Amino acid sequence: MTDTTDAARQLITPRTLRGFNDMLPEEAAVRTVLLRRIEDTFVAHGFQPIATPALEYLEILEGKGGEQTDKEMFEFEDKGGRWVAMRYDLTVPLARFVAEHEGKLRFPFRAAQLGYVWRGDRPQRGRYRELIQCDADVIGATGPVVDAEILVLIRATLAQLGIGDFRIRVNDRRLLDALFEGAGIQGESTPVLRAIDKLEKIGTHGVEQELAGLGLTPEMISAVLDFVALGSGAGVTLDDVAPFVAPYGSGGDALEALAEMFDLVEAVPAAPGSSVALDPSIARGLDYYTGIVYETMLVDEPELGSISSGGRYDDLAGLFTKTHLPGVGGSIGLSRIMGVLAERDLSGLDTRRPLVMVVTPPDSQLRMVAMRLAADVRAGSDLRVEVYPGQHSHKRQMKYANAKGARFVLTIDDPDSIVVKDMESGESTVSTPAEVPGALHP
Amino acid sequence: MTDTTDAARQLITPRTLRGFNDMLPEEAAVRTVLLRRIEDTFVAHGFQPIATPALEYLEILEGKGGEQTDKEMFEFEDKGGRWVAMRYDLTVPLARFVAEHEGKLRFPFRAAQLGYVWRGDRPQRGRYRELIQCDADVIGATGPVVDAEILVLIRATLAQLGIGDFRIRVNDRRLLDALFEGAGIQGESTPVLRAIDKLEKIGTHGVEQELAGLGLTPEMISAVLDFVALGSGAGVTLDDVAPFVAPYGSGGDALEALAEMFDLVEAVPAAPGSSVALDPSIARGLDYYTGIVYETMLVDEPELGSISSGGRYDDLAGLFTKTHLPGVGGSIGLSRIMGVLAERDLSGLDTRRPLVMVVTPPDSQLRMVAMRLAADVRAGSDLRVEVYPGQHSHKRQMKYANAKGARFVLTIDDPDSIVVKDMESGESTVSTPAEVPGALHP
Repeated sequence: MTDTTDAARQLITPRTLRGFNDMLPEEAAVRTVLLRRIEDTFVAHGFQPIATPALEYLEILEGKGGEQTDKEMFEFEDKGGRWVAMRYDLTVPLARFVAEHEGKLRFPFRAAQLGYVWRGDRPQRGRYRELIQCDADVIGATGPVVDAEILVLIRATLAQLGIGDFRIRVNDRRLLDALFEGAGIQGESTPVLRAIDKLEKIGTHGVEQELAGLGLTPEMISAVLDFVALGSGAGVTLDDVAPFVAPYGSGGDALEALAEMFDLVEAVPAAPGSSVALDPSIARGLDYYTGIVYETMLVDEPELGSISSGGRYDDLAGLFTKTHLPGVGGSIGLSRIMGVLAERDLSGLDTRRPLVMVVTPPDSQLRMVAMRLAADVRAGSDLRVEVYPGQHSHKRQMKYANAKGARFVLTIDDPDSIVVKDMESGESTVSTPAEVPGALHP
Repeated sequence: MTDTTDAARQLITPRTLRGFNDMLPEEAAVRTVLLRRIEDTFVAHGFQPIATPALEYLEILEGKGGEQTDKEMFEFEDKGGRWVAMRYDLTVPLARFVAEHEGKLRFPFRAAQLGYVWRGDRPQRGRYRELIQCDADVIGATGPVVDAEILVLIRATLAQLGIGDFRIRVNDRRLLDALFEGAGIQGESTPVLRAIDKLEKIGTHGVEQELAGLGLTPEMISAVLDFVALGSGAGVTLDDVAPFVAPYGSGGDALEALAEMFDLVEAVPAAPGSSVALDPSIARGLDYYTGIVYETMLVDEPELGSISSGGRYDDLAGLFTKTHLPGVGGSIGLSRIMGVLAERDLSGLDTRRPLVMVVTPPDSQLRMVAMRLAADVRAGSDLRVEVYPGQHSHKRQMKYANAKGARFVLTIDDPDSIVVKDMESGESTVSTPAEVPGALHP
């Protein structure tokens, strides 16, 4: 009894940090499939993957003061006395990357980044503190063609992830700026944008109160609310928003650019259930956006929030270089998407390759045949092949094969005679080793 | 002047931490190809990918006191007062994972892990502090079949990475234990193993001095040195080592198991230039190994050190669970391999898909044709397709296409007439949009 207690006392409880999750094989297989589809689609659209470190100088990642308060980073002083942090998103590292390697890149530069980010956010904002983000950005170009390419890319990519119907909701900061000008709203627009952003969370009345708190007059507030109210229903057109924005600032130019952009997006065939639509209620609270902004909702589960968002910025790397680098980008939140998929039937994702189990014979000469056979099947097919890792009874090995979901089991009777059992039909046939790879048709 | 100076003063120098590197598109493309080949080969051998977090409780990662002093982890107190660290390797997280999810896994469990690890090591030990490791482990099984499967897996995987000829050098802790017993070396063997491990770095004389420093007698030292000296030449056999080990402890059993294991490895056809061989000088300084241990050297560049290593352990997760979990595993150091490849001709790796550039026409109707055409080519081929992201002269767009290495350039003259320029031959042909996807043969 004393020994057991002592042993138990020494054990460390195996656990992960809150918000940090392991992936069991099923989930990890989904991750692999989705990441490859995303990366392949990005690459097919001419985006080139790059990679930046998980850890950077804190001063690099802190960014502008305006955003700093929102970021809860994992930051610390390393053993060399440097203040460092784990990256919070992929945008700031991209800006640093582009500024640092400016001379080696050819602009317009289409960058793809797929990687983890870490956020010490208040837990209520999501259950993950370690997230996979997939970003695509065109840097050093402006105009309706690039904006359309990003939206087409995001639409084509999401359509391959098995998430069901989705809607990409697009607005434009230039329209909002024109609206504010028309309504006489002056000064810093970020707080107003953030208030608008909360529309789906806190409702019209809540936004109204927030705007009043920012000092807007009832007339200003009703102009804003009338405008964003257009977005709650489907089918809103640029003609609908024109009265609010066309006469003010660059509102007219923006309407024209957006008209062309939507035409370009429409020119590309879309997968069923995927749509790109104007939505005046989309604001995005980040202060670096200067043109289109977008968010993406699942049609059946809008309450999950945006699974992909982004927009156009005027000056990506202004903190790090004097070179003016405008661009447009989109980010897919893979962790959130995987959370959605975890509750769905994944049979359409085809994440698993059929398994062939080679039973280990009791004789060492036959075990050599088994190893060779496994290698030949692997070389000649897309099957997964496992040699039973031990020396147990045939019955126990069959039980293991069954539990692992093996599609075929190969039993070696003698060097020239392999019993191939089809675990689905239950039927067994006998083949020579040379015939086996060709005989397995899952 | 004053303005410029002020602007310059505010810029943050874009830089990465020492030992942390960006990957430019060429390098990132190599990473993708290699990671996919490794993962696919692991999966073909029945290993199931899992994932663990980058950040864990420090007490989990610290492991046993014996190893702790070697680990320079990025550790810190998070904002919730928890001591946490970035993972230093994939083995300790695997142990924690297996203990935590024991009830959900089916043993023997074949785990694959591909991911980053972070090491604050003294810089002279390598230029990377952020490394990609690719680990495969069979947990809950022992014996020559599993040992052979790991070696066959590592050999098959490395053979696909374009690294040239390599040699997997295998030894066994049971042989070393028997040697020590025969030579009368008693007590903790880890310091002796670590001294042996330095043979290639500090030479025979250096090892001799270290062993003397550990209190070994000249007779003990010469027994050790005679044994490890067998390993420096190729072609050493189990018969050669037998006199040193067969009479002692489990030396005889180990020789028998190794004989079968090498037979099983030999039974599987190997790629040219890849070999698995006995090497009595391989020790591996980690105290958890209890059976085979291996390291892997490039034949042409042995000075680079091991690109893959691993071995058998008796008790993977003893810190976290009372369940006895023996296993065997191998780890591929992808960062080191990428460092090797960076200095070689990578044309054989086929990392890039040919690029098609669609020139943006001056007319908005034709731009819609361009977008549609790009989508059709992407859908019907494996080509990368980029629509020129701006509205510039045809000459400037051709120059960009050329600089980006485009294989084909598509210019839209009117909605029914596309000029396809083959950038390799310089020839141009005219097609309808429907004909274009079928007309591009890189």
